[in-house]
Amino acid sequence: MSRPLTFLSDYGDSDEFVGVCHAVIARTAPESRIFDITHQIKRHDVRTGALILRRSLPYFPAGVHLAVVDPQVGGERRGIAVRTADEDRIFVAPDNGLISLAAQSFGGVIEAVDISGAPQRLEPTAATFHGRDIFSPVAAHLASGGHLADCGVPIEPNDLTVLEMPLARAEADELIAHAITIDSFGNVTLDVEHQELAAFGLRLGQLLTVNGNEVPYVTSYIDVERGALLVYEDAYRSLAIAVNRGSAADLLGLSIDDEVRIKLQ
Amino acid sequence: MSRPLTFLSDYGDSDEFVGVCHAVIARTAPESRIFDITHQIKRHDVRTGALILRRSLPYFPAGVHLAVVDPQVGGERRGIAVRTADEDRIFVAPDNGLISLAAQSFGGVIEAVDISGAPQRLEPTAATFHGRDIFSPVAAHLASGGHLADCGVPIEPNDLTVLEMPLARAEADELIAHAITIDSFGNVTLDVEHQELAAFGLRLGQLLTVNGNEVPYVTSYIDVERGALLVYEDAYRSLAIAVNRGSAADLLGLSIDDEVRIKLQ
Amino acid sequence: MSRPLTFLSDYGDSDEFVGVCHAVIARTAPESRIFDITHQIKRHDVRTGALILRRSLPYFPAGVHLAVVDPQVGGERRGIAVRTADEDRIFVAPDNGLISLAAQSFGGVIEAVDISGAPQRLEPTAATFHGRDIFSPVAAHLASGGHLADCGVPIEPNDLTVLEMPLARAEADELIAHAITIDSFGNVTLDVEHQELAAFGLRLGQLLTVNGNEVPYVTSYIDVERGALLVYEDAYRSLAIAVNRGSAADLLGLSIDDEVRIKLQ
Repeated sequence: MSRPLTFLSDYGDSDEFVGVCHAVIARTAPESRIFDITHQIKRHDVRTGALILRRSLPYFPAGVHLAVVDPQVGGERRGIAVRTADEDRIFVAPDNGLISLAAQSFGGVIEAVDISGAPQRLEPTAATFHGRDIFSPVAAHLASGGHLADCGVPIEPNDLTVLEMPLARAEADELIAHAITIDSFGNVTLDVEHQELAAFGLRLGQLLTVNGNEVPYVTSYIDVERGALLVYEDAYRSLAIAVNRGSAADLLGLSIDDEVRIKLQ
Repeated sequence: MSRPLTFLSDYGDSDEFVGVCHAVIARTAPESRIFDITHQIKRHDVRTGALILRRSLPYFPAGVHLAVVDPQVGGERRGIAVRTADEDRIFVAPDNGLISLAAQSFGGVIEAVDISGAPQRLEPTAATFHGRDIFSPVAAHLASGGHLADCGVPIEPNDLTVLEMPLARAEADELIAHAITIDSFGNVTLDVEHQELAAFGLRLGQLLTVNGNEVPYVTSYIDVERGALLVYEDAYRSLAIAVNRGSAADLLGLSIDDEVRIKLQ
Repeated sequence: MSRPLTFLSDYGDSDEFVGVCHAVIARTAPESRIFDITHQIKRHDVRTGALILRRSLPYFPAGVHLAVVDPQVGGERRGIAVRTADEDRIFVAPDNGLISLAAQSFGGVIEAVDISGAPQRLEPTAATFHGRDIFSPVAAHLASGGHLADCGVPIEPNDLTVLEMPLARAEADELIAHAITIDSFGNVTLDVEHQELAAFGLRLGQLLTVNGNEVPYVTSYIDVERGALLVYEDAYRSLAIAVNRGSAADLLGLSIDDEVRIKLQ
C-alpha cells in the first residue's frame, strides 16, 4: 500500500536540501507522490509553519505529512511520528509544536512514537540534518505502508509539545485580535475564524476602525480603491486585512503577534 | 483519457498556494502530470505572464494550460476555459488577456466557456483564491477527459479580452522597438521576431547603435567582452539585448515597454 | 529501460527555463522521474555547482545527472556526456569542470562523448539555451535507455576539464583551510573532510581559534548560545563553521575561497 506525502520545511530552495530529502524518500517509497507545500517558511519560524500546515492540509490527501522547521536539531527535542483520530493522517516532525495545530484539527493525536532512534534512520546520522537522516526515511517507511510502531518508542500523546496561540477576544464594541500569519503579499490573517466572525456580527459593507484606520468590511481586494485597506474573510475563512495591490503589513506596520483592534463604527 | 497540465502563476513560492492547487488538481486528475512553468511572475503582471506562456508553450505537450495572474479576482472579470484551433490546446484562466497571446499562436480560440459558476468549483468559493476553488478544479476536470461544455456557459470567442502589444516599426535606417520582457538575468527581449529581423537585414558582426550605445549584432554572450552589450537573436528567436555576465536592463536603464532605438551604423 | 534524472542549474525559478527543460525531457523520457537538486546556484558559479553535485549525488539514485551552469554557452567549450567507473552514473553538462568533482567521487570517467552536435538536439539550436536544445534532449535520450555512443563523438576522458580546488594544509598547530561553500543560512563548509579531520585530532568540546575568534568544536548548533560561533562536522562530514540561529559567513566576513586559520588552543 502506498500513500501520498506532503512536505513542508524552512529549507528554502537555494541549497540541495529539499532535493536530497525527495531522493531519500524515493528510495523507500518510489510509488508515493510528494506534494511540496512550501519550503520557504522563515528560518526557525515554527509557528508560521504550524499555521500553514493547519490551514492547507485539508486540501491535501490524507497520507504522511512530513514537516521540518527545527531550530533545536541535534539537541534534546524528540523526533516524532503521530497518527490522528480523524482521517488516519500521519505526521513526521520534530516535537516542537510544528504539527500540533494541524493534528488538533484532525481530531487530535491517538498514537505517537519517538523516532529519534528509528531503525529506518540513515547512518551516520548527521546532528544537523535530521530532515534527511531521520524524518525522510521514517516518512518514506510510513508512506510505503509501514507501521508507526516499527519506527520508535511509544509516547503518550499528552506529552507532545503543543503551541500556545494568542486568543482574540471581544470587549464591548471592540474585537481585540492578533496578526497570526503574514503572507508574501503582505496580507495579514487574524486569529478570528469563520464562526467567531459570525458571532461578532459583521455585515458586508460595514465600516470598521482598524488600529485607528477606517476600513470597510468587504468581499475581495477589488471592492476598494487601489492602495486602500480592506477587512475580509480570507480564502481559509479567517478574518484578514489586505491592501488592494499593496501590503497591509507594511501599511499598518504589523508583525506577527501584534495586536489588531477592530471597532464597529 | 488523461492529459498533462501546465501551471503558471504569480503566486510565488513563499506560501502554500501552489502546493494547494497541485493537491486540488490531483484529487480529480491523479494521473495527470503537472508541469510548473513558473510561479514567479511579478505580482499582477498579466502581460509578462502572457508573453512567457506564448514563448514557452510550444515546448510543452498539448494539454490543459492553467494560468493565474489575476489582479481582478473577486471582481466582475470572468473565469474562462477555451480551446484553440491548432493542437486542441485548452486554457483555463481569468479573462484578462493572460492567455490571449498564446491562444493566438495556436490558431486562435474556437470554443470558450465562462467558468465563473462551474459545477466543478469548490464550495464555499473564496472570493480571493479562484486559483484553488475554480481554476484548479476546472483544469483538473478537463485534464481527466472532461468536456469544456460541462464547465460553464458558452461565450463568443470574439468577446474574450485580448492584450494590446506595442509594435516595433522601421523608420529609414532605424528600428523603433520596445522592451517586452526582462528575464531574471537582465536580458531584454524586444518586440521583433525572427521574420521581421530577417526583413530588417541585420548581418552577424554588424555594429549597431542601441539607444546611443555602440553594440555588435552577434550570436551569443561569449562573442563580446565581459561586461559588454550585445544584440542577438534569443532562444525564442526574438531580437534581444544582453550583457555578457551582466544585466542589460540595468546597464541601459530599461523597463518593460521602454522604447529601444536600433540604428545600423 | 527507464532511468531517473537529476537536474541542477543556475537558471533560478523566476523564468520558465527549468519548466521548459522538464517538458523537453518528458517528450523523450516520459517515464523518468526528474529530481530537481537546486536551480539556485549563483549565476555562473561553476564551482559551487560542482561541490553541491559532489556532496548530494550519493543520496540520489544512479541515473542521468543533468547539470547546467554554463558561462561559456555559445562559445568554444564542448557539451559532454560521460559515464563513471562506479555505479554506472551518467552526466550531461558543459565541459567546464562542473561535473568533474562528482565524477571523481564515482571512480572517474571511463567513457565520454562530445555532444555539441548530438543528433538528439533540437533545431534550430539556440546559441544561448543549450540546456533546452542540447543537454535536455541528450539527457532524456540516455534516461530512456539510449547509449552514450549515439550522442556524439568519443573523446578522451583525460581531456575533460577538471576543477582545481584549494587544499587545506596543517602547519604546526594550525590548520589552514578555505571556505569552499556557503549555504543560504550562512553556514561555511571548509575543505577539510572527515578523514583529514580525524588526522588533525580534534576532540568534541575542544576550544579553537578561528581567524582570531574563540570557537568550540561541537556537534550541533544547539551546543552553543544563540548568536555564538561553532565549528562542527557538517551533514556531509566536512568541517564547517556556523552560528546558532545566525550566519557565520556574515559574522566572520567570509567569502568563497577565503582562508580560514584554525588553531588548537
